[in-house]
Amino acid sequence: MSKIGVHSFVWSAGSSKDELENALSKTYDLGYKLIEFSYLDPKQVDVKWLSGRLKELDLDVAISMGLPSEGDISSSDTSVVNNGRDILDKAVALVRDLGGTKLAGILSSAHGKQEQALTKKAWDTSVSTLSKVADRAKSAGVTLNLEIVNRFESNMLNTASQGLAYIEDTGASNVLLHLDTFHMNIEEADVGLAIRHAADKIGYVHIGESHRGYLGTGNINFAGIFDALVAIDWKDYVTFESFSTTIVDKDLSLKTAIWRNLWDDNVALARHARNFIELGMETAAIKAALVEKAHLAL
Amino acid sequence: MSKIGVHSFVWSAGSSKDELENALSKTYDLGYKLIEFSYLDPKQVDVKWLSGRLKELDLDVAISMGLPSEGDISSSDTSVVNNGRDILDKAVALVRDLGGTKLAGILSSAHGKQEQALTKKAWDTSVSTLSKVADRAKSAGVTLNLEIVNRFESNMLNTASQGLAYIEDTGASNVLLHLDTFHMNIEEADVGLAIRHAADKIGYVHIGESHRGYLGTGNINFAGIFDALVAIDWKDYVTFESFSTTIVDKDLSLKTAIWRNLWDDNVALARHARNFIELGMETAAIKAALVEKAHLAL
Amino acid sequence: MSKIGVHSFVWSAGSSKDELENALSKTYDLGYKLIEFSYLDPKQVDVKWLSGRLKELDLDVAISMGLPSEGDISSSDTSVVNNGRDILDKAVALVRDLGGTKLAGILSSAHGKQEQALTKKAWDTSVSTLSKVADRAKSAGVTLNLEIVNRFESNMLNTASQGLAYIEDTGASNVLLHLDTFHMNIEEADVGLAIRHAADKIGYVHIGESHRGYLGTGNINFAGIFDALVAIDWKDYVTFESFSTTIVDKDLSLKTAIWRNLWDDNVALARHARNFIELGMETAAIKAALVEKAHLAL
Amino acid sequence: MSKIGVHSFVWSAGSSKDELENALSKTYDLGYKLIEFSYLDPKQVDVKWLSGRLKELDLDVAISMGLPSEGDISSSDTSVVNNGRDILDKAVALVRDLGGTKLAGILSSAHGKQEQALTKKAWDTSVSTLSKVADRAKSAGVTLNLEIVNRFESNMLNTASQGLAYIEDTGASNVLLHLDTFHMNIEEADVGLAIRHAADKIGYVHIGESHRGYLGTGNINFAGIFDALVAIDWKDYVTFESFSTTIVDKDLSLKTAIWRNLWDDNVALARHARNFIELGMETAAIKAALVEKAHLAL
Repeated sequence: MSKIGVHSFVWSAGSSKDELENALSKTYDLGYKLIEFSYLDPKQVDVKWLSGRLKELDLDVAISMGLPSEGDISSSDTSVVNNGRDILDKAVALVRDLGGTKLAGILSSAHGKQEQALTKKAWDTSVSTLSKVADRAKSAGVTLNLEIVNRFESNMLNTASQGLAYIEDTGASNVLLHLDTFHMNIEEADVGLAIRHAADKIGYVHIGESHRGYLGTGNINFAGIFDALVAIDWKDYVTFESFSTTIVDKDLSLKTAIWRNLWDDNVALARHARNFIELGMETAAIKAALVEKAHLAL
Repeated sequence: MSKIGVHSFVWSAGSSKDELENALSKTYDLGYKLIEFSYLDPKQVDVKWLSGRLKELDLDVAISMGLPSEGDISSSDTSVVNNGRDILDKAVALVRDLGGTKLAGILSSAHGKQEQALTKKAWDTSVSTLSKVADRAKSAGVTLNLEIVNRFESNMLNTASQGLAYIEDTGASNVLLHLDTFHMNIEEADVGLAIRHAADKIGYVHIGESHRGYLGTGNINFAGIFDALVAIDWKDYVTFESFSTTIVDKDLSLKTAIWRNLWDDNVALARHARNFIELGMETAAIKAALVEKAHLAL
Repeated sequence: MSKIGVHSFVWSAGSSKDELENALSKTYDLGYKLIEFSYLDPKQVDVKWLSGRLKELDLDVAISMGLPSEGDISSSDTSVVNNGRDILDKAVALVRDLGGTKLAGILSSAHGKQEQALTKKAWDTSVSTLSKVADRAKSAGVTLNLEIVNRFESNMLNTASQGLAYIEDTGASNVLLHLDTFHMNIEEADVGLAIRHAADKIGYVHIGESHRGYLGTGNINFAGIFDALVAIDWKDYVTFESFSTTIVDKDLSLKTAIWRNLWDDNVALARHARNFIELGMETAAIKAALVEKAHLAL
Repeated sequence: MSKIGVHSFVWSAGSSKDELENALSKTYDLGYKLIEFSYLDPKQVDVKWLSGRLKELDLDVAISMGLPSEGDISSSDTSVVNNGRDILDKAVALVRDLGGTKLAGILSSAHGKQEQALTKKAWDTSVSTLSKVADRAKSAGVTLNLEIVNRFESNMLNTASQGLAYIEDTGASNVLLHLDTFHMNIEEADVGLAIRHAADKIGYVHIGESHRGYLGTGNINFAGIFDALVAIDWKDYVTFESFSTTIVDKDLSLKTAIWRNLWDDNVALARHARNFIELGMETAAIKAALVEKAHLAL
């Protein structure tokens, strides 16, 4: 059975000690086993304290990020690429220092709406840069999980198959896919088939609804997704992500175009999400077992 | 929000005081608000005691039954019809004496695989007989809920539309439909559309999976069904029904052809079912509200 | 891409030369590549002529049947078993003489609603009898395709997994599964998963809707089924089957409980079905290709 | 039964006479009844000739457009608003001069990724400006169909309910909704429910897949959408839209972020789409009729 995580922006977009403590305790209280933070600046956040609190609460941690334009590792400007490389290296260090193993998000190019199609040169620059980051991440025990996002947030990796091609080009064993059902609903031909096809290289999974609100209140066929996760024997984390105008991270809310208030009460939302994922995964597991068993009562 | 019931055969097919007490307490403990019994013989069961226990536990009750061949009110043999009429009258009395308001099940003809197609005469005999039962039931404050079942269990009412035609012919206001998702999955063109079409005349609802086991582990699109129930503003009971070879009522298990062991642990089953229905109905209600609201944050 | 067949009862339940010729020419005219006949008695039907017409029209053929009670090869009565064995042997001969390779249907026990659960002895008797029929069928170049049917039509093989257990017990390489979406919708936990799970042993496929009428007008998720057939690289026949009171085979209509008139115009029905299956399979193939291809335009 | 149209960008993004003639003849040959053009500049296109060709081929026409930033009628800059008003007035005139009745697309604000949330002032400016355009359009016999698009292409009208609120504020009877399944898959809680809820105000419908390629090869539940269109008795046009890197309109391809080559052969694509929509709508109509009819064969 998979373990369930939650993105900290369900709780707060802030990173003061109080806000982090609130996020940790809500995560713990609602039975989530992992908290995902967007990149936290070690100059602003007491990493040692945070790492200690995670251990006390027996919570796993993941860090996600989207590279900024000025740190786009697919850029034709070497200084931008180098800046991106440094950002990634720092994020790897943060993951390690927090006791985690997963860096996730848009790591291969800049996050945001692009104004031109991808070029071969950009792809190659990205691949070669990330390969080296991956080498260093390996020593730190950290995997790089490339988030596959929709066309409006990147022009590079929009489908799992594109991600597989990228991973193959890096030749690195700790570069994996970070799949997200919100994005898959837009880009994949079939979410379940895409999960099956990419099974060996999936490192991290986001569960989000088509409009980014309450699970089950949009267009995503979650039963088919849970079936696929059971079919590939996924035991690692699935992390709930949701956005509303209630909680705003200025940069991320603009890049992800969050204009609507889909919820106010984040505790109700998160409780519903955990029940939804847990019941969904349990049901899919029972179903898969039924298919395989003859149930002869002879 | 709908209230959730459970069929007593999830707990036991027996009707000793111990078995009934066990069924009542499990129903209560797991948060169900209604228990449905298959017809209980007042000569064998202490109706007064049962009625008292239901009140103590604040549980509603429904009685269901399928007419036997020897009580088929569509028969061309008057003595068989009269026998069926008496069976129905007794069942109405039982519902009333237990403090309930719903008699449900296959009330318009015999339960079981038929060996010939329905005739106009059989339909008319059934309608006129049931109309009179309905008159008496009205005085007792009891509704007659005609279960729409699959082709192998009746040759008379296989679709909600057929049930609506029957109800219209009776001219009775307390004859309603008893819809069951297991049967609808076989017979209806679209379960959600059928619920919307029959909205005004639905009196009772059974929630069962396509193979009669764990909800969500079969082929039924429950999200669409919960959407339809929300769309028609259904506030009355939905009752969970499931069968396995673990619990056998000899007559019913044969008529419903229960050959497989789909579960052993009825507490796990019933807990899962209640969560599944509750979460499903809650999610459908949130979804419906989202569709209607503009969510302008101006 | 799969080839598409049609059951002759879409055209007629009769087996006069005129009726057969009509069925053949309609099958051909509407672009079907195989016609399936219910068992035809060589004493009544000119097998040589029929075989010749099939060749002239370049049509493949399959024969299906359900064993009668008096030929139930799981019976405890040896004379009944022997009768069933002879019936099967004759059907194998008919398939061979018509130039076909597939015998399909309910071959392991009697077709119809059973009044008791299956016993181990019945299973073993059936397996050992069918194994020997299979040996002889092998010499004739004929496969035995065990139809997996719903609980009301057999108490023996209701799921693909049960069929796989049976096949394993026979040890025969020419005993395969005959899957039928109408039955699977009732019995399988998931039609797509069941197809994937049984992939190696599927010999024949029936495509029928949940109520046995027009495809796409019931509850079956055909897109998921076509996806599964593409996933297992199914290239063999899928055969359309539908029943209405318009065309009645007295025995089969009763056993399958056909009480409703779901269509009158069988040409319109069959044209729609061929388009539906062809478009569905084509679409599923395009989808599967999309999932696997990176579509990088670098 | 609905009529089926096709967006001219399936054929070409150009507007030379040859390109237009090719688009017209392909549209006609494949059995589409309407062609939709993105706004055509009357200075570059021979409107009289085009109008004549449409009549000769008995093709209906619609014009769609997205307001440019410099013509955003929700702008706080009056000259920009006035420019947008003039653009809309010209488009209305073009529709009229081509013999059409529908102007569609993103008419209430600029098309493209916005960098700030909508303000009440922007909404009000848009409403009051469009109301006046609508008055003039009414005299020209033209409806203004507001396309509801995803969050990355507009910050104003992302859901049908938001569109209904906007229409109500205009008080105009010829301002309607232009729904598009690609966008609805991202933004609506339920596409079918949204269609039912907005039924009275739908003026135009785009049918596009979740990834904008072949219909049926993505995540959209088209059966549910066709059911909803049948339920609201939609008889007007549904227009197929698809994008690939094969055919590029520089401005539109960037705004809609078309990075992948999902098809090369537009004739195969358009033929498949017409069959898919036609068969889907036909099937939904048969299904709806089945639900309402009792099919008693007495």
